[in-house]
Amino acid sequence: MTHLPTHTLDATHDPQLSSWVASANRPDSDFPIQNLPLGVFRRGNEPARIGVAIGDQILDLAACHRHGLFTELPSDLVVALGDTTLNRLLALGRPAWRLLRQHLSALLRHDAPAQTLAADILIPQAQAELLLPATIGDYTDFYASIVHATNVGSMFRPDNPLLPNYKYVPIGYHGRASSIVVSGTPVRRPNGQTKAPQAVQPQFGPTRRLDYELEVGVLIGPGNALGEPIPIAEAEQHIFGVCLVNDWSARDIQTWEYQPLGPFLAKNFATSISPWIVTLEALAPFRTPAYPRPQGDPAPLPYLFDPADQAGGGIDLTLEVWLTSQQMRAQGIAPLRLSRGSFREMYWTIAQLVAHHTSNGCNLRPGDLLASGTVSGPAREARGCLLELTWRGEEPISLPTGEQRRFLEDGDEVILRGWCERPGFRRIGLGECRGMILPALE
Amino acid sequence: MTHLPTHTLDATHDPQLSSWVASANRPDSDFPIQNLPLGVFRRGNEPARIGVAIGDQILDLAACHRHGLFTELPSDLVVALGDTTLNRLLALGRPAWRLLRQHLSALLRHDAPAQTLAADILIPQAQAELLLPATIGDYTDFYASIVHATNVGSMFRPDNPLLPNYKYVPIGYHGRASSIVVSGTPVRRPNGQTKAPQAVQPQFGPTRRLDYELEVGVLIGPGNALGEPIPIAEAEQHIFGVCLVNDWSARDIQTWEYQPLGPFLAKNFATSISPWIVTLEALAPFRTPAYPRPQGDPAPLPYLFDPADQAGGGIDLTLEVWLTSQQMRAQGIAPLRLSRGSFREMYWTIAQLVAHHTSNGCNLRPGDLLASGTVSGPAREARGCLLELTWRGEEPISLPTGEQRRFLEDGDEVILRGWCERPGFRRIGLGECRGMILPALE
Repeated sequence: MTHLPTHTLDATHDPQLSSWVASANRPDSDFPIQNLPLGVFRRGNEPARIGVAIGDQILDLAACHRHGLFTELPSDLVVALGDTTLNRLLALGRPAWRLLRQHLSALLRHDAPAQTLAADILIPQAQAELLLPATIGDYTDFYASIVHATNVGSMFRPDNPLLPNYKYVPIGYHGRASSIVVSGTPVRRPNGQTKAPQAVQPQFGPTRRLDYELEVGVLIGPGNALGEPIPIAEAEQHIFGVCLVNDWSARDIQTWEYQPLGPFLAKNFATSISPWIVTLEALAPFRTPAYPRPQGDPAPLPYLFDPADQAGGGIDLTLEVWLTSQQMRAQGIAPLRLSRGSFREMYWTIAQLVAHHTSNGCNLRPGDLLASGTVSGPAREARGCLLELTWRGEEPISLPTGEQRRFLEDGDEVILRGWCERPGFRRIGLGECRGMILPALE
Repeated sequence: MTHLPTHTLDATHDPQLSSWVASANRPDSDFPIQNLPLGVFRRGNEPARIGVAIGDQILDLAACHRHGLFTELPSDLVVALGDTTLNRLLALGRPAWRLLRQHLSALLRHDAPAQTLAADILIPQAQAELLLPATIGDYTDFYASIVHATNVGSMFRPDNPLLPNYKYVPIGYHGRASSIVVSGTPVRRPNGQTKAPQAVQPQFGPTRRLDYELEVGVLIGPGNALGEPIPIAEAEQHIFGVCLVNDWSARDIQTWEYQPLGPFLAKNFATSISPWIVTLEALAPFRTPAYPRPQGDPAPLPYLFDPADQAGGGIDLTLEVWLTSQQMRAQGIAPLRLSRGSFREMYWTIAQLVAHHTSNGCNLRPGDLLASGTVSGPAREARGCLLELTWRGEEPISLPTGEQRRFLEDGDEVILRGWCERPGFRRIGLGECRGMILPALE
């Protein structure tokens, strides 16, 4: 594996660069020409294909290929771009991803000849159905926010909120791949076993403590063979890009089931992800140092320590959660922002998650999804789930309609948003991850 | 979904029925004509294809098709049988599986005309490389032996060995699909973080408490759409068959990492499965009542209770673990049997596992693997892992060479075996699941 830096800035990051797709040049667009995130879409009954978000449009890569716009690209890359998922592209690795970025940037810049083909190669996002970007073989969920771990721990163990392993082990567990759905897919309130503290027996029925969890996902590239760990210095070569993840959680089911083997039915009924994968190349201007461990915290063990990762393994990514209730929509009231935090505050970097995950030889495959765990910051407004925001429901949130929320109600829609901003650079957005709650089955 | 009984006996179970494949008629064969398990194999550089174990041979289904032996079968079944994994066959469901069983039984019976094609359609198992039988999308590991749960619990919580949820919730967690390997694949000793009780900090290095876990796996058939639970009365319609599973475990890594989200790197470095999937049809003569819950135990909640499942949801399947060390093999000493137990003693039936898993709407897909958790019985010799057999290493096992084993050493080979026997019926075997320990990477 070649060691390619992921933080290099080049002409594709130039904030002066504009696109012939006018909507991409608006300052508030998530998808300027400096972003170029990849996804998979379909229009009507046409086959699924790979596209690039640009402003409010999608550059249709299958159409680009038909129009001879990929003749300069190597054949393995062209084959990968013609597939119905990103998996082949993910397997090709960073040199191919960089080449693609350069090529897409050239195709979309203000003076590119390809603009004469606009009607053939652009599709309005509003006309497209966005699909899962990859076949996700395995999904792993981490617990990388020390604030989240401390908050949740303090609810259950006031004297000892943070377990002794936390500062050494990037805690994670395996989630369910089959129930990962793309943004916009409704989420049915799950039934399950719950037990009130004083009840003699558990009961089976709809969860009463349905929650979201604001997380960031990373989509894995080439990966490793079974038995061959990925050293931390190479870990980012195996990360294609990031997306938003909503790790829906039924807190009452979780409380009753999770001992001793961890969360199961409380989580695996649905996990929503945003459709556009923003590459590490696009995020290069927004890399920050790893979490500054307070004095007294142990240094990461050597297999989790890399000077370059310490210097630039973080991402200055702002994250927000918004909510609308059925009543709010009926009254024409705009969504309410519930929280705003930053991915910069995570205790573990994404490279540390990859290095830890493979340190025992466990193999990652192209398309695997690693999620960060709930992103919570120290400020109250930076808490990334209702469990923390309402402190187990003890401090309900008031909606503009006068409704109150301890946990999610049927008809609520949760909207996650994320973006990077820095003076001298164009804003890079992750788009949205949406999900609306349907009533439980009888 | 049609309600088809899975316990029906017919002419394919007749113990008098013999095969033109002579080795299948030996009384000790795992694979008589009454079994007909399916798997995937390859010979040399030839493509992978589906086969049926019969005695010490494999019936090559691709060759059968070429020779016109499938002309009476429906086209979707023929297409499924021509694939390189069992997944399409799994998706077809029980009616197709029964039809296939009838057809295979007719092809292989002593008087079948197909025997003139023996040289073309049979391949000795010794000449074949057995592969994973299916693409496994998600792997779930349960904890269905109350004896195992009680034994392990009593090591960590002597006063309160069994957690309060155990008799209500079929406890399970998601495992790693990417690192499932077929029997015979060597297993590298994992490195990981461990912490001695008195140590100030954890250290990173090879596990010193490498263990096996004897389990039974079920391979899922059609499965369910997201949001649509499988009622327990229909659960067995979604189970194609069973295999042996070795859920390799690093106990010292597990102890340090598992709080609060469950086992992760302690388990996901490798899981071995036996190559032949024995169908529920073949197991029909060996079904037994569900575990007889002692007086005082709660009845299963309604979503886990089905009279037919209570009457015949168990399987009288004998399971054994054998070990050879490098020294034993060098001295020509036969494997040592470490344990023998029965799957009949599990607290939860396989139908209950499926019903529970989908009760929140979680979707199962064809090829998903559900493992039972360690199968341990009340007798000392029925303990299904070294953690229990040596009681955390406190009661080491002596090998015929004079060596001792607390946990597995490099060069040890673990062999799982399983079979059903009942007077008046032919023995039905699961074959073997083998794995040898390689030294850790430096």
